[in-house]
Amino acid sequence: MATLHLEDLRCSLIRQEETIIFSLIERAQFKQNLIIYEDGGIPVEEFDGCFSDYLLWATEGIHARVRRYTSPDEHPFSSNLPEPILPPIKSPNSIKPTEINLNVEIQCYYKDNLIPEICAEGDDQNYGSSATCDVACLQALSKRIHFGKFVAEAKFQRDTDTFGTLVKSNDRNGVIDRLTDKEIEEKLLRRVELKAAAYGRDIDPVNDDCGYKIQPETIKHIYQDWIIPMTKKVEAQYLMGRLDD
Amino acid sequence: MATLHLEDLRCSLIRQEETIIFSLIERAQFKQNLIIYEDGGIPVEEFDGCFSDYLLWATEGIHARVRRYTSPDEHPFSSNLPEPILPPIKSPNSIKPTEINLNVEIQCYYKDNLIPEICAEGDDQNYGSSATCDVACLQALSKRIHFGKFVAEAKFQRDTDTFGTLVKSNDRNGVIDRLTDKEIEEKLLRRVELKAAAYGRDIDPVNDDCGYKIQPETIKHIYQDWIIPMTKKVEAQYLMGRLDD
Repeated sequence: MATLHLEDLRCSLIRQEETIIFSLIERAQFKQNLIIYEDGGIPVEEFDGCFSDYLLWATEGIHARVRRYTSPDEHPFSSNLPEPILPPIKSPNSIKPTEINLNVEIQCYYKDNLIPEICAEGDDQNYGSSATCDVACLQALSKRIHFGKFVAEAKFQRDTDTFGTLVKSNDRNGVIDRLTDKEIEEKLLRRVELKAAAYGRDIDPVNDDCGYKIQPETIKHIYQDWIIPMTKKVEAQYLMGRLDD
Repeated sequence: MATLHLEDLRCSLIRQEETIIFSLIERAQFKQNLIIYEDGGIPVEEFDGCFSDYLLWATEGIHARVRRYTSPDEHPFSSNLPEPILPPIKSPNSIKPTEINLNVEIQCYYKDNLIPEICAEGDDQNYGSSATCDVACLQALSKRIHFGKFVAEAKFQRDTDTFGTLVKSNDRNGVIDRLTDKEIEEKLLRRVELKAAAYGRDIDPVNDDCGYKIQPETIKHIYQDWIIPMTKKVEAQYLMGRLDD
């Protein structure tokens, strides 16, 4: 297995914050438009599901053809995706192959909790635009959360004996404790709130006292109460299976 | 024809600035990856063109199916797109139907000028990610530039006699002069530069002296030297045909 450096992974996670915050701000310009999340709300021929899922499935089909999901840091939400039309890239394994995929849970939280938090209630008929934003949000969130596999592998490589002992004694809570770095988490939350304030603020040269497209505390809370715990769940699942054959 | 209010259109244009700046910043995280713009650089079976165009065409195919291009403010880059699978929305005409479509020019400028300005030279192999960002950038730029049709119609409705006289005497320069509002343009450029500085700045709570993902002046210059003139070109073309049967 290739050596993973936590510092490199952190740089990627920090850059992914922009992608996540931008995509959430983009979605927040449209109302909740809940009809796009209702099965059959906007019926699409030969597709069994809601309109937002249809656009996600169709987009993932294109991305699958250009081999997005052969990359270990990408996880599709949909099943029944086409085969890649590009030849596979041979790259060294940087993590242990694993079936961990929390996308069902991510999608539920996104529709049930995140959308009502970031979008105004109601229906503005921008269904296609909203669903296109959903695809970008879900892909960014999924990538970030599943990045936990790489973070876990890097932490395991740095501290193999401790994690080995915890995993062998099936001590999942011990693993989570060992994974947690309170100082790093607090720095992350401060940074994310600053970013959300900078990117989400309405900007007008003649009026300094503008509002926010999404409140910075909302973004901070999404990280604190959901993205970080979900990433840690991926990390723990990965490590609990790290010593299996 | 429905009445168009310039103030409503300006609100939409101001909100589109976020979409454009966010999408450019997202593209700028990857290198130029020029191979994705070379015909056959990454060969895709049964597609005659470059890899970036393939992803654009495939994405537009999905959007066409969910009737994106039946909306008068959306213009596809690709031809041979599928028919919508959703029934058409009946809405009153807000502009005179027109064939104006500057997407070929937009795409050329984007690949030849914009990419070298916003992305570092070189190849980082993030071809799929870069091409996905290209789709978002091109769609945002195209929407903004073709929004000139609505702006032109609103200005025509407000000032029908003057524009009527200029158009009848085939005075294109006179039309462009009359369309130009220097004060609004300068306000726009100040705002865009402020936004670019806020959204493109690297943010780190322990280090105030960070760089920019894209220099604010670059975004300002793209607006000043390209987006505004291109929008005005759309406006002028629309008005020159406004009185035709």
